[in-house]
Amino acid sequence: MSVMLNFAMFPTDKGDSVSQYVSQVIKNIKDSGVPYKLNPMGTTIETDTMAEALKIVQESYDILEPVSDRIYCSVNIDAQKNKGQRMQSKIASVEAKIGEVNK
Amino acid sequence: MSVMLNFAMFPTDKGDSVSQYVSQVIKNIKDSGVPYKLNPMGTTIETDTMAEALKIVQESYDILEPVSDRIYCSVNIDAQKNKGQRMQSKIASVEAKIGEVNK
Amino acid sequence: MSVMLNFAMFPTDKGDSVSQYVSQVIKNIKDSGVPYKLNPMGTTIETDTMAEALKIVQESYDILEPVSDRIYCSVNIDAQKNKGQRMQSKIASVEAKIGEVNK
Amino acid sequence: MSVMLNFAMFPTDKGDSVSQYVSQVIKNIKDSGVPYKLNPMGTTIETDTMAEALKIVQESYDILEPVSDRIYCSVNIDAQKNKGQRMQSKIASVEAKIGEVNK
Repeated sequence: MSVMLNFAMFPTDKGDSVSQYVSQVIKNIKDSGVPYKLNPMGTTIETDTMAEALKIVQESYDILEPVSDRIYCSVNIDAQKNKGQRMQSKIASVEAKIGEVNK
Repeated sequence: MSVMLNFAMFPTDKGDSVSQYVSQVIKNIKDSGVPYKLNPMGTTIETDTMAEALKIVQESYDILEPVSDRIYCSVNIDAQKNKGQRMQSKIASVEAKIGEVNK
Repeated sequence: MSVMLNFAMFPTDKGDSVSQYVSQVIKNIKDSGVPYKLNPMGTTIETDTMAEALKIVQESYDILEPVSDRIYCSVNIDAQKNKGQRMQSKIASVEAKIGEVNK
Repeated sequence: MSVMLNFAMFPTDKGDSVSQYVSQVIKNIKDSGVPYKLNPMGTTIETDTMAEALKIVQESYDILEPVSDRIYCSVNIDAQKNKGQRMQSKIASVEAKIGEVNK
């Protein structure tokens, strides 16, 4: 399977500015070696197995848990068989149909 | 932490009727012994750790993966320190403020 | 179409206790007359059209916006043709397959 | 408010290849003039009001509804006061803290 997982995780007890916390989560993803792409409201990763994808979610939590009293997380997963790297190909497939898009 | 996780997971390659697949996922949750509550669009579980909560997501995937070419999953997590069983208390807290609700 | 929409909306600039804000959102849903069901992490509503469902999301925002500097909202929508009231029938359909569940 | 809304909407009764449908939704966003950014699992838009953001969700549904028996949609909204265009600035803020990222 190609497992694409998009998620955002953040403390909700820190007021309205949380980028210092979110940055640590993203740094861990960057350092993990897993293919990823940051978007304005979350990060998409792509792995071969669900276990690898959920490991990133667990690690993100392990970063925020010691410094937060409350954490919220939203995750979407799209897993598909018989597909290679979809992180690029999905956007390319849309552009083949409707022309260049902002990305 | 009290980790509440609400999720829906379903195959998207099976046409518009997927309750036979979703039922197997819910049966596994029911059999797991983890406190849970089924709602019309997903299932909420509550665990002491993130690892236990993600284990249920992994098991759900392991049920659907052999029989599906494409799987979608939406997950929301609300983790909070210093709280007991919130699955009942959160609804009770709302009812204390605005009266009885449908639940 | 039967439009089922499950959502949670809350301020993220108010510390880790937000039930006073969330209660106002739920009170509006209760008063709206739209069929709804509260669950531990959100509220499911069911309407005949997408416009009616999104109206509840807009009203919820209009309640929180004046008193919040930052608001987060997670929404899932499941719309299906040729179906009556699914809010009860979906859970009944699962129970027909695997026996009684917590709900 | 700056309203950022990330969403994915797709038919679930069309088998596992839905890019022809999703492309029409994205074309509408592109043609709408609303600032947007496509990511591998959804599209983020940014508007000044919730009404403008939900209008895009409604339009997306109006594109898919006539050709689908079942539609799923996942939406996340992050609304913040006293902020300009966050679609670029949020990623820039992360990069200021941890260096360049994939985006």
